[in-house]
Amino acid sequence: MRIAVVSTMRTSVPPQRSGSVELLVALLAENLVRRGHEVTVFAPGDSKVGTRVLSVLPAGYHHDETIWDWRLAEFMQLGLVYEHADEFDVIHSHVYCFALPFTRLVRTPTVHTFHICPTPDFVRFCRLYPEAHYVMISEFQRRMFDDVPVAGVIPNGIDTTAFPFSPVAGDYVAFIGDFRPEKGPLEAIDAARKAGIRIRLAGPATDYFHEAIEPELDGYDVEYVGELDHPNKTAFLGGAMALLFPVRALEACPLVVMEAMACGTPVLGLSTGPLPEIVEQGVSGIHVAEPSALAPALREVARLDRATVRRLVVERFDVRRMVDGYLRIFQRTLDKTCAAHRNESWE
Amino acid sequence: MRIAVVSTMRTSVPPQRSGSVELLVALLAENLVRRGHEVTVFAPGDSKVGTRVLSVLPAGYHHDETIWDWRLAEFMQLGLVYEHADEFDVIHSHVYCFALPFTRLVRTPTVHTFHICPTPDFVRFCRLYPEAHYVMISEFQRRMFDDVPVAGVIPNGIDTTAFPFSPVAGDYVAFIGDFRPEKGPLEAIDAARKAGIRIRLAGPATDYFHEAIEPELDGYDVEYVGELDHPNKTAFLGGAMALLFPVRALEACPLVVMEAMACGTPVLGLSTGPLPEIVEQGVSGIHVAEPSALAPALREVARLDRATVRRLVVERFDVRRMVDGYLRIFQRTLDKTCAAHRNESWE
Repeated sequence: MRIAVVSTMRTSVPPQRSGSVELLVALLAENLVRRGHEVTVFAPGDSKVGTRVLSVLPAGYHHDETIWDWRLAEFMQLGLVYEHADEFDVIHSHVYCFALPFTRLVRTPTVHTFHICPTPDFVRFCRLYPEAHYVMISEFQRRMFDDVPVAGVIPNGIDTTAFPFSPVAGDYVAFIGDFRPEKGPLEAIDAARKAGIRIRLAGPATDYFHEAIEPELDGYDVEYVGELDHPNKTAFLGGAMALLFPVRALEACPLVVMEAMACGTPVLGLSTGPLPEIVEQGVSGIHVAEPSALAPALREVARLDRATVRRLVVERFDVRRMVDGYLRIFQRTLDKTCAAHRNESWE
Repeated sequence: MRIAVVSTMRTSVPPQRSGSVELLVALLAENLVRRGHEVTVFAPGDSKVGTRVLSVLPAGYHHDETIWDWRLAEFMQLGLVYEHADEFDVIHSHVYCFALPFTRLVRTPTVHTFHICPTPDFVRFCRLYPEAHYVMISEFQRRMFDDVPVAGVIPNGIDTTAFPFSPVAGDYVAFIGDFRPEKGPLEAIDAARKAGIRIRLAGPATDYFHEAIEPELDGYDVEYVGELDHPNKTAFLGGAMALLFPVRALEACPLVVMEAMACGTPVLGLSTGPLPEIVEQGVSGIHVAEPSALAPALREVARLDRATVRRLVVERFDVRRMVDGYLRIFQRTLDKTCAAHRNESWE
């Protein structure tokens, strides 16, 4: 199949530092190539993904001060995508719903994967294109799209080989992520303290970090380890008794949960988001209704069998599953589109 | 000609209150209809412009709290525009450069009128579409687009019949506009005080108004008259000895300058913007290099012949001139496009 995979114009594919959408696009594109498909990645010009890259910008707008309007950059890039539409059997957009207004102008069908939980206008605009092929990355996310018709739910996948199994944990629980209130770093610290377990925190030091987290650090029981590159991240996750993930933000399908699980590390978090779809209660982790229930569950989650945690994530969230899922959707979309065009020419 | 005129999705055409782009689009569309053209206006659904209106939203996003991302609303609307492209001979976009990424996907040519002074990314993206038909509204604006090829310069026009000539002025100079520092209300007050002339100010009361302007008011020598509707605006402008327009913001072709002149009111402002293109030095107004030169020129500008001021603006900036200009550009664009398609079919 000739597939266009459309990433954001924020940063390169794969990203030099953080960027979960760009990481996922890299993984997807590489695996599609490996399976023999002809893949073009639309992403900033400095992307290196082992296949053709097309771009209106030499680098992502995250690294370019002359780009004042990031949305405009995304739309200009989508112009480029659709000018090339004839070269593809399917276009796979990861850029919000921004591809929608282009879709009826070309024959090539578009599959849209949403990586966010939607705002009201987002859902409203999706309704204007009921024929579109929307992929949700969790049932939690799907529910937020209300009556919008959905082509399928394909959870994110990770390269489980890049997160080696760590059979024996260290003496700490891990928190990793952006330091923002809704990511729950204070709740994580509070839970670890109450449970009498050491906590180590990783992520880029934001203003909020300096304001609210730094005063809590003591260098051992509550320790900050900085922003980690991939080898250090896997060591950090693999060495943890559990990942504390008390995120209150609306995240559609968080990759870090799967990454921890791939290392054998069980996950403890809230049941309000997509966690119940990723974590099997009492087997690969525990989800609780309230932050106050985190501390009492912490010793219990740390006792879960790490080999089982690993096995479950490999079975359910390895990238192969995700690629299988997308190829099925692409094929179905293509079949539908060809049938529609045949009907058109009979008219 | 079958013409699509594409307004913003901010507010209706014409706007219920302020909105200079929406006002201009209304004027243009009405005049194109009057000349026998088939006009569709793309604008919020509550627009009333005497011809077909198409919209993805029932009202402008300025009046709709469920629209979180105004740019997305503009792009969704542009999707609708280009889905209808086959119905038009020409598409005339007033929405920044947002139509650009759609233009190569359809056969109908697009003319873009820019109403702003551009940011660096804006110019950069325009360069990606050198074949596009860009209309500038002043030479001042054109210079900011550097080497971008331009189809023509068409200054904004006003309906001079809606701004009746006022042969005798009152005892004040006028300031009208949003109260923001770069609009120069403090400079205007300062100049009037130094010249010993009363100043009256009109416009919506912003936070800046309450902070910086309100303390300067004394109810007579420096008087605030509120936000004015059209009849009160013409009376206010027509009764002024001069319009004080010390705007430091980059405005491409300000309508209020022409509106004052249509009432016979000469204009005093800075020479750094497009004013020298609109105001004939020493005839219909005066432009000076620095705010400090405003006060000494104020009595002089008030002595200019009001009938001449009126005559010049009717000759140069009546809407008929603007409509003539656009029809010439539309025809030229259409001829070019047809020639290109003929060459294509010969290949």
